[in-house]
Amino acid sequence: MTAAAAGQTSTRAAADPAGASAGRVSFQTEPERYRHWKLSIDGPVATLSMDVDADGGLRDGYELKMNSYDLGVDIELYDAVQRLRFEHPEVRTVVLTSMKEKIFCAGANIRMLAVSPHPWKVNFCKFTNETRLGMEDASAHSGQTYLAALNGTASGGGYELALACDHIMLIDDRSSAVSLPELPLLGVLPGTGGLTRVVDKRHVRRDRADYFATRAEGLGGDKAAAWNLIDEAVPRAKWAETVAERAAELAARSQRPAGAQGIALTPLDKQRDEDRIAYPFVTAELDRAEGTATITIAGPGEGPPAGAAGLAGSGASFWTLRTTGDAALLLAYDRLLLDNRGDWLANEIVHFLKRTLKRLDVTSRSLIALIEPGSCFAGSLLEIALAADRSYMLSGVFEEDAAAAPATVTVGEMNLGPLPMGNGLTRLQARFTGDDAALDQVREVAGQPLEADAAEQLGLVTFAPDDIDWADEIRIAVEERSSFSPDALTGLEANYRFAGPETMETKIFGRLTAWQNWIFNRPNASGPDGALRMFGTGRRAQFDRRRV
Amino acid sequence: MTAAAAGQTSTRAAADPAGASAGRVSFQTEPERYRHWKLSIDGPVATLSMDVDADGGLRDGYELKMNSYDLGVDIELYDAVQRLRFEHPEVRTVVLTSMKEKIFCAGANIRMLAVSPHPWKVNFCKFTNETRLGMEDASAHSGQTYLAALNGTASGGGYELALACDHIMLIDDRSSAVSLPELPLLGVLPGTGGLTRVVDKRHVRRDRADYFATRAEGLGGDKAAAWNLIDEAVPRAKWAETVAERAAELAARSQRPAGAQGIALTPLDKQRDEDRIAYPFVTAELDRAEGTATITIAGPGEGPPAGAAGLAGSGASFWTLRTTGDAALLLAYDRLLLDNRGDWLANEIVHFLKRTLKRLDVTSRSLIALIEPGSCFAGSLLEIALAADRSYMLSGVFEEDAAAAPATVTVGEMNLGPLPMGNGLTRLQARFTGDDAALDQVREVAGQPLEADAAEQLGLVTFAPDDIDWADEIRIAVEERSSFSPDALTGLEANYRFAGPETMETKIFGRLTAWQNWIFNRPNASGPDGALRMFGTGRRAQFDRRRV
Repeated sequence: MTAAAAGQTSTRAAADPAGASAGRVSFQTEPERYRHWKLSIDGPVATLSMDVDADGGLRDGYELKMNSYDLGVDIELYDAVQRLRFEHPEVRTVVLTSMKEKIFCAGANIRMLAVSPHPWKVNFCKFTNETRLGMEDASAHSGQTYLAALNGTASGGGYELALACDHIMLIDDRSSAVSLPELPLLGVLPGTGGLTRVVDKRHVRRDRADYFATRAEGLGGDKAAAWNLIDEAVPRAKWAETVAERAAELAARSQRPAGAQGIALTPLDKQRDEDRIAYPFVTAELDRAEGTATITIAGPGEGPPAGAAGLAGSGASFWTLRTTGDAALLLAYDRLLLDNRGDWLANEIVHFLKRTLKRLDVTSRSLIALIEPGSCFAGSLLEIALAADRSYMLSGVFEEDAAAAPATVTVGEMNLGPLPMGNGLTRLQARFTGDDAALDQVREVAGQPLEADAAEQLGLVTFAPDDIDWADEIRIAVEERSSFSPDALTGLEANYRFAGPETMETKIFGRLTAWQNWIFNRPNASGPDGALRMFGTGRRAQFDRRRV
Repeated sequence: MTAAAAGQTSTRAAADPAGASAGRVSFQTEPERYRHWKLSIDGPVATLSMDVDADGGLRDGYELKMNSYDLGVDIELYDAVQRLRFEHPEVRTVVLTSMKEKIFCAGANIRMLAVSPHPWKVNFCKFTNETRLGMEDASAHSGQTYLAALNGTASGGGYELALACDHIMLIDDRSSAVSLPELPLLGVLPGTGGLTRVVDKRHVRRDRADYFATRAEGLGGDKAAAWNLIDEAVPRAKWAETVAERAAELAARSQRPAGAQGIALTPLDKQRDEDRIAYPFVTAELDRAEGTATITIAGPGEGPPAGAAGLAGSGASFWTLRTTGDAALLLAYDRLLLDNRGDWLANEIVHFLKRTLKRLDVTSRSLIALIEPGSCFAGSLLEIALAADRSYMLSGVFEEDAAAAPATVTVGEMNLGPLPMGNGLTRLQARFTGDDAALDQVREVAGQPLEADAAEQLGLVTFAPDDIDWADEIRIAVEERSSFSPDALTGLEANYRFAGPETMETKIFGRLTAWQNWIFNRPNASGPDGALRMFGTGRRAQFDRRRV
């Protein structure tokens, strides 16, 4: 069960970048096949060493020199983070370091960015953000703390990778530095949360942060430590020893259990043809003319249990989401997980569910949940309807299947805390922001299957048409939405989905990403004379100097 | 004093849109000269009636039909809001309504948006946002509550204007509605905070908000009220009476004093030539080649007192900020204001200072404060240095003026609460986010003039070079920054300036504005076949359907 559950999301993630750009990318990999990373494990300490193969770029047209990365490099990192959590309960500290001399990581490959179309750049940033948030999630919730051991310069995305770690060590050799040179050299922002983490995670004073982000060569040594850009600068002579010491200290703080057995994440059984993607529990049917995908998620049956959600789709403007299965069985599995939160594996699975659902919240696809007889929107699967931009629930039954039981939705424990959004609220809290009474009413009916009219009255679904209106209403909603500007929909959804408080995570996906997307679209960055194109040519970018 | 103080900002605001676009816009007006609004006052109730002159557009090429607006219309509204606060202490409720039949306001003029260059659109949104936030500020802090009396349809920016009011009434006549048709009709977002206010202020459930913003015709009557898009739908027969009743109720709740005398906001004495803008207390010198402006603010002298900050500049990538004057005098004026917060006028002035400084926080200009001998960075004027992206403070004195007293900065009461940023934090709190000890240290030295080394050590200034390094360091900082991508600087500053929590206000200027700017830049909106250009032509926009 867990193998399938854990594997599903890494495949789901594949859909976005692939769909939005030329060519199809495989997100399936395993440590034996890594081209750019070495994973070694020594008791409680795992070491992930970056050693990017310059000729191993995912696409042609660029060389991955100096441990610069592209999506292919990050897919391996994502895979490693994932496997460490599920396959290696014994690991308590993950050391990120480099096998190159004098360089930790030069960040995202500039040439790759320069030749990539806008959607590719945006989705590349989204995927790398997800990887880094996953590392922070492991540090925060899995007793698996990330330690950045910068044995050489970490610039741009390289430093942003370090910022996602809990502790940053930089070798003090008078040349190694950390830096965010994107703005001075490339005319764009650090695209993987760097600005947000510098001020909101590491609390670097904003005027210092400003200086730092405009200084291409960055800062090293004691000054970097004094400004809290790193945690410590360590002389070369003491490097290996100090890294080992810190790794051991962090491991000692971990609550990870002793003697537990990991589970192998085996490749997912995926069937794909032109208009259909099928996994054991998730199927996506694509309608390319309409620009939509219909995704159906199967809840647990009598056969192999599977309680986790995974979603796939590509090339569509939006997704309609369906579920099938037995709500009572699903709630029982939810309960099993929650009753065993102390167990490391149950804990991992719940966090995995949480992160999978968070991805739905930031997906640039409109999401419409369709709740029909035979569906299974209960507990953790109800979160999918709550993550949707709208939901339609059939009131009564379809005339052609009048003997069916009407659809129900059931609120469960999983909806009341364990699966928060990026803003720290549950989807129910975000839904009823400012209306505590409505939230209380929903809490009170937890465990009760609710038919359409009750669900609508409680505010759990948007509309509850009956059989007579159902087909037309859905058709019109889908057609209309497909006719709208996809950009405006992305902006609309990015704003509406995050009512209430903001966190570092929502700032990264909201504020920071939006500004970066704007900058990516401006001629000053991406035009023929823009900074991204001019980088490395020896010529200077030509800027339209008007501030906007 | 207060007249000058209050007047300054409306003039300061002029600089942005004018600088970023063709032609120069005057922001100086007065009720007698309004072309688009009628202001009438009846005891505690003021009525601001929109009656846009279709031929009165600020630029050629569009007609302001159906109470649609351009910057010129909003300049008058801004002026009215301002004058009501300062000139009319007797006013406790402001009713916004329309003199047109069946239409309250059709929002921003689409043709104007379609023919405007990107910077104009961006700055237009920024100014209109400021006006609406000013109305909310008056409702929250001045006992002057805004009531939207929608006697006809309010669409797009028209409804957003209503959303900035405390109470929304809509006439119930089977045709009048509120709507946000930007997305379905124009392929852009509502640009004046509409999305944010719908979910974060009025707490409309997000799935309903989604439906609403995709339904061009909007919603009216009981449904609009049931969804909380409006506060009440009122039949035509009872309209006038009910509006009067609500206005009186809101007035009765106000703490505004009886019998107070307003102060007249007289035109500012402004001198302008090609490279210089001068007001009595503020001077801006422009260096167009360099793309910089040096702004000097005079603190109070022995002559006419003036404690408020106002800033002007245009066409420059960034501003260097200087002050001159006597810190002790300035702190005395600050104290006078704070000792009299119960007085309506002192209260208005402090809120005016607050709003003026907030504008600095969201300006798309890099801000560098220069703190030299003779400067006056204390209390409310110290906020300017704290709002800056960086500050440089001379350690010691200049050799050529060795007898001068070294520069000092002084923390005062004004830095510790009354002038919060849009995120609700003081600039000191935002500066020391996550470092309470540093904040405490700064609080402890309140009232003490601090020379450069102490100020640097306390973290109040970024750098403290001495006379030998001063000129070079400033020159390099200015030259370097001028060489960077202006877009990337805007993005950098928009992210760094708001560490910590977010509010509706920061969401509007950060998340929402960034997405809107991105959308404005995309061909789907602004290209030759984009939705903005196609609107009204009878042809459909051609979209690149890939979701990004």
